[in-house]
Amino acid sequence: MSREVAVEHESKRDQALRERARRVIPGGMYGHQSVATLPPGFPQYFVRAEGCRLWDADGNEYIDYLCGYGPNLLGYRHPEVERAAAEQAAQGDCMTGPSPRMVELAERFVELIEHAGFVMFCKNGTDATTSCLMIARAHTGRRKVLRARGAYHGAAPWCTPIKHGVLPSEREHFISYDYNDIASLEQAVASAGDDLCAILASPIRHDAYRDQELPSPAFARRARELCDAKSALLILDEVRAGLRLRHGCSWQALGVRPDLSAWGKTLANGHPLSLVAGSEALREAASVIYVTGSYWFSAVPMAASLATLEIARRERVIEHIERLGTQLREGIASQARAHSFGLRQTGPVQMPLMLFDDDPELARGNRFVAEAVKRGVYLHPWHNMFLCAAHTERDIARTLEVTEDAFAALRRAGV
Amino acid sequence: MSREVAVEHESKRDQALRERARRVIPGGMYGHQSVATLPPGFPQYFVRAEGCRLWDADGNEYIDYLCGYGPNLLGYRHPEVERAAAEQAAQGDCMTGPSPRMVELAERFVELIEHAGFVMFCKNGTDATTSCLMIARAHTGRRKVLRARGAYHGAAPWCTPIKHGVLPSEREHFISYDYNDIASLEQAVASAGDDLCAILASPIRHDAYRDQELPSPAFARRARELCDAKSALLILDEVRAGLRLRHGCSWQALGVRPDLSAWGKTLANGHPLSLVAGSEALREAASVIYVTGSYWFSAVPMAASLATLEIARRERVIEHIERLGTQLREGIASQARAHSFGLRQTGPVQMPLMLFDDDPELARGNRFVAEAVKRGVYLHPWHNMFLCAAHTERDIARTLEVTEDAFAALRRAGV
Repeated sequence: MSREVAVEHESKRDQALRERARRVIPGGMYGHQSVATLPPGFPQYFVRAEGCRLWDADGNEYIDYLCGYGPNLLGYRHPEVERAAAEQAAQGDCMTGPSPRMVELAERFVELIEHAGFVMFCKNGTDATTSCLMIARAHTGRRKVLRARGAYHGAAPWCTPIKHGVLPSEREHFISYDYNDIASLEQAVASAGDDLCAILASPIRHDAYRDQELPSPAFARRARELCDAKSALLILDEVRAGLRLRHGCSWQALGVRPDLSAWGKTLANGHPLSLVAGSEALREAASVIYVTGSYWFSAVPMAASLATLEIARRERVIEHIERLGTQLREGIASQARAHSFGLRQTGPVQMPLMLFDDDPELARGNRFVAEAVKRGVYLHPWHNMFLCAAHTERDIARTLEVTEDAFAALRRAGV
Repeated sequence: MSREVAVEHESKRDQALRERARRVIPGGMYGHQSVATLPPGFPQYFVRAEGCRLWDADGNEYIDYLCGYGPNLLGYRHPEVERAAAEQAAQGDCMTGPSPRMVELAERFVELIEHAGFVMFCKNGTDATTSCLMIARAHTGRRKVLRARGAYHGAAPWCTPIKHGVLPSEREHFISYDYNDIASLEQAVASAGDDLCAILASPIRHDAYRDQELPSPAFARRARELCDAKSALLILDEVRAGLRLRHGCSWQALGVRPDLSAWGKTLANGHPLSLVAGSEALREAASVIYVTGSYWFSAVPMAASLATLEIARRERVIEHIERLGTQLREGIASQARAHSFGLRQTGPVQMPLMLFDDDPELARGNRFVAEAVKRGVYLHPWHNMFLCAAHTERDIARTLEVTEDAFAALRRAGV
């Protein structure tokens, strides 16, 4: 492979698609998959995916560290998952009622998620977090929900990070605390008074644009204690990290059980599925709220999820992504040191985030990932990335060749 | 076929599944596909679907008039749609960016939906209606949204029909009017004052538990006029009726164009897809709100939708379902008359609803559909039904044999 040669990717088809999209899609693209905030050189459109690899509309190949922004846990188009999906599709998908797969899958998740007495399936991660709030409010009869400043919990009016089109009344009754800051959490609890409904938290701090943080065990335990003391509920938003940190509820490792948890992304290896898990005590509240969706009962994603859970357990996927994530982190850390760049790699190794020191405008970070992308490694400058079961040691080795070149290019450019 | 013999369906497997579900799913099932509010004899679980037919977990076969509560427009497992989906699945589905299918499909919908300058894809119908509100509020800077009393627009806190777990503050700034009642609409507009953001309406009145109503042209035009006079926006919720009334926006037939419309269900013949369409003037507002979802950019439902639109146009699906819906309606009307039952069949023939006169507790309606279900015809007692392209004249004829027997059984039972 040619080192130190930055091939400018062909991007004619991507550019032509963007031109057409500008006419029929607001801003040319929307949501988390818009490349509008990424540096030049990132492709907007992909035509093929396999394992940990993507091909853009112009045929350029990438080792992908976004994994569809999370859903790709086992590798794109995993044969066993796709076979299970195709077999179910040959029977029925979106019918007038659910298929038996729904019961089997609910049993599987109730077994897997330690605090769960029941589950409810939905489509978006936002459906799951929103339903958790509804169950919590129905159960407690209280209003105030505490959430960490800067945390992402979905894109409904109550939680979307950009407030255009949102009314202040839709965001009433939320109180902010700082993640991992016990004093700030206690203060938020106090200010909720008798109206404390729930504390909402992500299993790790994975906010965009800032270092990730593992939860301090003391913080997680204090959140649980405060909920118990106030008869409030602890809600864990596992949508992004679930099934990548543990094969089970993420805070179980800290000995902390939530009352409700919201899951998504990884559940069916890219087939659309999310869910709410609730503790036994919340069963009644969960049965009186009314949530539903046209495709929530569809059988194909549930068949894909049954296969995904089985493969993830059998193949010890978490051990694999931890091992390769460690290789990647250590390799990049050593390159950064050799090139005298201050680089912070934070969060769990299987969900990498890289931020350069003294880089408030991301000039260095953007240039670094742009150099990687044009060499065929898709990295993100400010959103956490993901490893999947299909990444191999050769992929990590190739990635490290590319990042070495990217650091060298960065140094030459003097950014 | 044996007439006047009501075979009691075998339901052991369905019962066993329900028993298991009661342990792991709140209330045994939730949402619109729960059979808890249907009379005994309705199966909860289905194992197979093809064309207009369903098979329950015990192997009983049904001619289905729910069509998955809408999504099944062309027939379950339509070979051409499934081929398009499988071909796309063999390339990529939920990737780190959308596929070119997204641009092609956006172009197709902008062509199809007369008022549309742009579209945004999402998953749930609720995603689409909620995004319409956000765009309308971002554009107008106003808060009040008028909606018809009793209308269903989704299951988010702002719109779910059951208020458990919902805060009053989440429902502030909605004002009710009565569908087709111009005076009530004008009154609602007046009470919104300078804060009128939008009028939200379904293209027809398809509320549960009551007669459906076509929109009076005067009502639809007045809604448009009032919006124009107040610089407010007209939002049409096409999620349930879209692509079954017209191959285009439903109110175009009345010469009325909305500013925003929400679509779902039929768009991809059961593959999960919904969308917002907006007029050119709203492009800026649509580009500043932040809405997204883990699976919103997935390519398979978009490929399925491209095929669905092509087939629906080519095969003149709307003419077909209107013709068969008319046969069904006329046949049932004549049977009801012959058996001296007062039966109201309302709404468009392709979206039938049947309610018996003097039947406030639905004793007669429930018994009627229960008699039909045990004879292999799946009807609903209080939710509008749907025809699809796979219903044939033979299916209608067989259905009418069954409904004749159901009327006779009803008369014998003296309900």
